[in-house]
Amino acid sequence: MSELNEKCSLAKSAAYELIKIDTAVKNNALLSIADALCSRSEEIISANNKDIENAKNNGMAAAMLDRLRLTRERIEDIAEGVRQVVSLDDPIGEVINTKKRPNGLLIGKKRVPLGVIAIIYEARPNVTVDAAALCLKTSNACILRGGSEAINSNTAIMKIMQEAAYGTGIPQGALNIIEDTSRETATELMKMNGYVDVLIPRGGKGLIKSVVDNATVPVIETAAGNCHVYVDGDADIDMAVNIILNAKVQRPSVCNAAETLLIDKSIAEQFVPVMFKALKDKNVEIRADKRSKDIFSDVSDASDDDYYTEYNDYIVAVKVVDGIDEAIGHINKYNTKHSEAIVTNNYEKAQRFLNEVDAAAVYVNASTRFTDGFEFGFGAEIGISTQKIHARGPMGLEALTSIKYIVYGNGQIRE
Amino acid sequence: MSELNEKCSLAKSAAYELIKIDTAVKNNALLSIADALCSRSEEIISANNKDIENAKNNGMAAAMLDRLRLTRERIEDIAEGVRQVVSLDDPIGEVINTKKRPNGLLIGKKRVPLGVIAIIYEARPNVTVDAAALCLKTSNACILRGGSEAINSNTAIMKIMQEAAYGTGIPQGALNIIEDTSRETATELMKMNGYVDVLIPRGGKGLIKSVVDNATVPVIETAAGNCHVYVDGDADIDMAVNIILNAKVQRPSVCNAAETLLIDKSIAEQFVPVMFKALKDKNVEIRADKRSKDIFSDVSDASDDDYYTEYNDYIVAVKVVDGIDEAIGHINKYNTKHSEAIVTNNYEKAQRFLNEVDAAAVYVNASTRFTDGFEFGFGAEIGISTQKIHARGPMGLEALTSIKYIVYGNGQIRE
Repeated sequence: MSELNEKCSLAKSAAYELIKIDTAVKNNALLSIADALCSRSEEIISANNKDIENAKNNGMAAAMLDRLRLTRERIEDIAEGVRQVVSLDDPIGEVINTKKRPNGLLIGKKRVPLGVIAIIYEARPNVTVDAAALCLKTSNACILRGGSEAINSNTAIMKIMQEAAYGTGIPQGALNIIEDTSRETATELMKMNGYVDVLIPRGGKGLIKSVVDNATVPVIETAAGNCHVYVDGDADIDMAVNIILNAKVQRPSVCNAAETLLIDKSIAEQFVPVMFKALKDKNVEIRADKRSKDIFSDVSDASDDDYYTEYNDYIVAVKVVDGIDEAIGHINKYNTKHSEAIVTNNYEKAQRFLNEVDAAAVYVNASTRFTDGFEFGFGAEIGISTQKIHARGPMGLEALTSIKYIVYGNGQIRE
Repeated sequence: MSELNEKCSLAKSAAYELIKIDTAVKNNALLSIADALCSRSEEIISANNKDIENAKNNGMAAAMLDRLRLTRERIEDIAEGVRQVVSLDDPIGEVINTKKRPNGLLIGKKRVPLGVIAIIYEARPNVTVDAAALCLKTSNACILRGGSEAINSNTAIMKIMQEAAYGTGIPQGALNIIEDTSRETATELMKMNGYVDVLIPRGGKGLIKSVVDNATVPVIETAAGNCHVYVDGDADIDMAVNIILNAKVQRPSVCNAAETLLIDKSIAEQFVPVMFKALKDKNVEIRADKRSKDIFSDVSDASDDDYYTEYNDYIVAVKVVDGIDEAIGHINKYNTKHSEAIVTNNYEKAQRFLNEVDAAAVYVNASTRFTDGFEFGFGAEIGISTQKIHARGPMGLEALTSIKYIVYGNGQIRE
């Protein structure tokens, strides 16, 4: 049996055992994992050094190397994240919406684990711990498939987590990592119907596309964020500048950073010079349409492609629009349904924007950067869904659950 | 532009318009549709006659012919179904769980349409109306792709629905049927990412498998039901006989009918003779394991394949088990995660069955036949989901919705 088949089988069996486990046992296992990661950090660092060395030999860029590197301090931060998961409410087992039917049947909707969750992700080894902890807290078995760059780190981390968890009553097979990081095995994992209940890709565009194209198991699409801020004619100009600077430059590399700025023509004359100067002061490259260049010419030209691009960088596309209809139309055409903001003091336009813009999160007078499980108060995040089924926006623990109908009868048959 | 591309484009545009439409407009359109179906029933029947004639020429079986046939009475029943959808609460626009964050952001979770829903289904033309009505009520644009056997009926019905709806303020493109019923076009529809937000297949195993294998858009898997009734040692024998007869023979062709009967060994001596006689009286073929044949020999042998089979017929597989552990293990191995029942008066075993059996609906002391949107009190049903993400079990109007986070700020930026 291949490694993949064996681990999928183990995970499926473990999933049936996990639903019998109490919250206290799961929390205890999470605390053991956190402690073990800290007390065995030397093992992790030594494995991580192999990854770092390989990466250097392969010419990995410095920024990527930094994301791959684990230090004692980083491992302690990761362990602290696991301890925070302990403090979250366990969603499993809650029965919502119990109703009595006219025939006497009592029908309840019970929150249950999804079963087996597979996660395919890229370089950062902290995902190995985060994902495992969130799956364990929700009584799901996990099958993790990280990138080859971090395989030594991931394998060492997983071994430590397994030993800690299995020693505290968690069933064998609850935590799995696929050591074979070939593309073929990843593709096979995407087709393990009957074993994998949901697959969550976490990574760049290429990974997401490969999963969407190849997977036959249910998928929750995450992450790409081509986010907009629309400055309405009734905006407070200082507030708009603040929000746009924050959305663009506070952390440009992330999915909830803004990529395109839309400006109502009625405020453009006043707003464009102030905004463009502020962006330039922060070293942001501006790619603008003709109408904004007519007001402030010392910027590059925006092409149609620019409006489709998620730069994740110090670049912003700009367009002056004829009002809210054009703004909403532009966003719904070019966006990736992630996070969108309007700056306005006009009640009707605020309501129209919230209602008509199609995105996981829509904002009035706030930065798009808040789309995040922690900022939304979920206490954790497994990713940000940009699809509409199952979960949309930041996914906390509840996104890792399903429901089942439990029906109490006393002999009812259907007429 | 192909028919498919054109209709997907139209549907997507209509979806953006549909979110602006009030409930009253949608209800009015549904009433117009119901009226038009009745007043123009001759057109439908005449189109249906062509389908019936073609089907006869192709040698369609009598039972299938009957499912395809539309009469004035049947059309009136279908129209009555549309009127019932009018009376259901509109789930769209409800804001659930609004919370104020420490930074003052007010974050609400708003129920919104999925957008564009595609449905691929088989022979029965009533699905054309049911599906369109449920999508319209939830402000979703729909793209329907029925089978070639019903294409004349479906096209005639769609034309009448479009004329009725578009005359009452529903945007053009909200209702679509794909007239090209080729397999290639169906496969293309499964890959219309960016246009189709969710695809729901309704039909037999072959159709479901084709969709799961080929679709790159999100799918909600429906319907296959290999359902079990487990008779525990502490069961009331009369109740068990009643429930099993109901689950097996009240309507054997449907997905929530029972296919396998599991019997605890401690009650087998008493129960098997009574039960088998009752099943034989109803002309049910019994395929049994050795242990039950030792008690009642005049039945066929069950193979392992039998336990995997959804007969949808007057056939039942039987197995005597060593208690609840074996019963739960058997069900979790062979079932399709649809509906499962235990008959028992033992509290602990009832709770264990509800907790540990992995299915959309689990019953104590009631027939599996109740798994149905109407029986569960949802007032409508678009299908029964057997997957765990998004919706599980009978899908009512809420299953056709997504959520979006709406965030009210007053200038918040992220630190």
